[in-house]
Amino acid sequence: MKVDGKHYYTIWKHPEDISKIQIIDQRHLPHRFVIEDITTVDQMVAAIRDMHLRGAIIIGAAAGYGVYLAAREAAETGNFDQAFKDRCDALKAARPTAVNLEWGVNRTAAVVNAAIDINEKIHAALQEADDIALEEIDRSQRIGAHGLSIIKKLSQAKGGEPVNILTHCNAGWLACIDHGTATAPIYAAYDAGIDVHVWVDETRPRNQGARLTAWELGQHGVKHTVIVDNTGGHLMQNGMVDLVIVGTDRTTSNGDVVNKIGTYLKALAAHDNGVPFYVALPSSSIDWELQSGSDVPIELRGEEEVTSIWGESDGELLCVRLTPKNSPAANYAFDVTPAHLVTGLITELGVSSASAEGLREHFNNAR
Amino acid sequence: MKVDGKHYYTIWKHPEDISKIQIIDQRHLPHRFVIEDITTVDQMVAAIRDMHLRGAIIIGAAAGYGVYLAAREAAETGNFDQAFKDRCDALKAARPTAVNLEWGVNRTAAVVNAAIDINEKIHAALQEADDIALEEIDRSQRIGAHGLSIIKKLSQAKGGEPVNILTHCNAGWLACIDHGTATAPIYAAYDAGIDVHVWVDETRPRNQGARLTAWELGQHGVKHTVIVDNTGGHLMQNGMVDLVIVGTDRTTSNGDVVNKIGTYLKALAAHDNGVPFYVALPSSSIDWELQSGSDVPIELRGEEEVTSIWGESDGELLCVRLTPKNSPAANYAFDVTPAHLVTGLITELGVSSASAEGLREHFNNAR
Repeated sequence: MKVDGKHYYTIWKHPEDISKIQIIDQRHLPHRFVIEDITTVDQMVAAIRDMHLRGAIIIGAAAGYGVYLAAREAAETGNFDQAFKDRCDALKAARPTAVNLEWGVNRTAAVVNAAIDINEKIHAALQEADDIALEEIDRSQRIGAHGLSIIKKLSQAKGGEPVNILTHCNAGWLACIDHGTATAPIYAAYDAGIDVHVWVDETRPRNQGARLTAWELGQHGVKHTVIVDNTGGHLMQNGMVDLVIVGTDRTTSNGDVVNKIGTYLKALAAHDNGVPFYVALPSSSIDWELQSGSDVPIELRGEEEVTSIWGESDGELLCVRLTPKNSPAANYAFDVTPAHLVTGLITELGVSSASAEGLREHFNNAR
Repeated sequence: MKVDGKHYYTIWKHPEDISKIQIIDQRHLPHRFVIEDITTVDQMVAAIRDMHLRGAIIIGAAAGYGVYLAAREAAETGNFDQAFKDRCDALKAARPTAVNLEWGVNRTAAVVNAAIDINEKIHAALQEADDIALEEIDRSQRIGAHGLSIIKKLSQAKGGEPVNILTHCNAGWLACIDHGTATAPIYAAYDAGIDVHVWVDETRPRNQGARLTAWELGQHGVKHTVIVDNTGGHLMQNGMVDLVIVGTDRTTSNGDVVNKIGTYLKALAAHDNGVPFYVALPSSSIDWELQSGSDVPIELRGEEEVTSIWGESDGELLCVRLTPKNSPAANYAFDVTPAHLVTGLITELGVSSASAEGLREHFNNAR
């Protein structure tokens, strides 16, 4: 999507210098737009580990480009196979719980291992990494197209008045390569000339909404307003929200949606006020092994994300304490929105009902 | 309640120096505990206007003590009546929308005007201000006693296991003179030796929960954990909340509860999970003139409370920006929780159902 009027992906190969991968270093957003050059596996490991980039989909692509750098470095050693394997292991260890990381490393390493000539290995790795990125962009675009029809109908029903969409957290293009998941229908609608306005949930404690979603919508030109997480219910009671679209970290086979903490509260309010509540996701986020959301362990993160916060003051990034020194805090990262509160799941294949039968049918029809 | 092991009110007359009123200057909490001496009407006006103290009940008492200072100052002029009236008008103008401010000024001014001798006027003002404070403390204690029976039953049902209570915003003793409203039953339970633990909603955007409720519970020794506002639903889904108690800014005659933004979302989650949801309030917070919550205009406050935040860094209070520079924000201060989501209203008279009939009966029986 656009930044300062220019089109960007979140990760890309340098157009002239083949030794460089470039990424948007998201740690500085929204206060500074920083592009980072990545030329070594160690740098890619640090970028993944220290969350210069975050989100399942971009991590899959970063894994692919990391394997490309691994092949280049291994070529400089006397023992390609061993050096390549060591570097791939280092990449996988950067964020051990990120499923897409291992998947992206394995997929790209397989084409490297299948090639014989060293130059061919390097070339194949870059090709595969590019393919991963392009496939993800395609998937985001398909999600966008399916979601667009929902927004189009709402816009028609409102006679062209702005369609107000509420979103939580950042399931935006910054978490993907382009377009995003929850944001893909929004960008598709905006690009199609539909009048849309987005209520951006701040998304405490990590403020991905206030920091990232607000920034990316603003840069692309989409009208939006930041609200604290407490506000969505009031807006829905007063007819100020036409549609909720969120992403998901994992959706279980019965349609229960595991997503950023607070999603469940918005789903309750949407249900109470007859506001459609959609979840946008690539099919890879569906966990067919799990029967329901209660099977998903909820990550308990560090207290410091609740007790203090980073912000900008006079051009500097600062961390300030918010709570009394002796007050403990609890930081549950996700919650489960039960399937019956979900109007529909928007995947790259179309729109499915959030139920075991609906999901089975959705994917069977697509085969 | 206790601060560093010593008992405090939020406002009191200096025990030795009759020219001084003292208050806890809440602007520095939770990072510093500051007691402010107030010896002039101008200082009291500034304390009310600039929110050194906030909350309807403490403002009523501050009005009373402000009138006492007004009488002292007027006595030093040649024209008591005019000087006294001017100072009372200045007090009322400090926060024009605070109903209790005008009420407290008028009530205390009436006894001043009724007295003849100047010394008697001053003495009567101090007596009336003390009476206002003592009446409010008594009211808080009665709310506490009625709420205590609810907590006691839950504790018995749990065989003495900790009773987990969730609260939103600060309806604590810092907003009153002592005990608070929503916190009064909690302090009563704690003081009665019942094992209680409080989930403290941060309460964005002004963070009254994280700053004030956490501080006052911690100082009194009550176990508590700060959570972001997104978390309560997840806790309720997992059986980690036994009871919700909140305060209210205004409750309409049908039992609709106007309270800090986000209260409605917690009420929805409580309803969805069978968790009792109580509102604690003095009867003065019931607005008999209004038929329902939709009649209450919702205050839209400044964007800066959403886009930036105050916190402590290296002993200094700092304001940091949280959002992109060009992203607008909306700051709705309150929402309406419909009566049907409210288990009961705890007033100084007992527990009433949240309905027009229930409230009528509650107050008729008490007459």
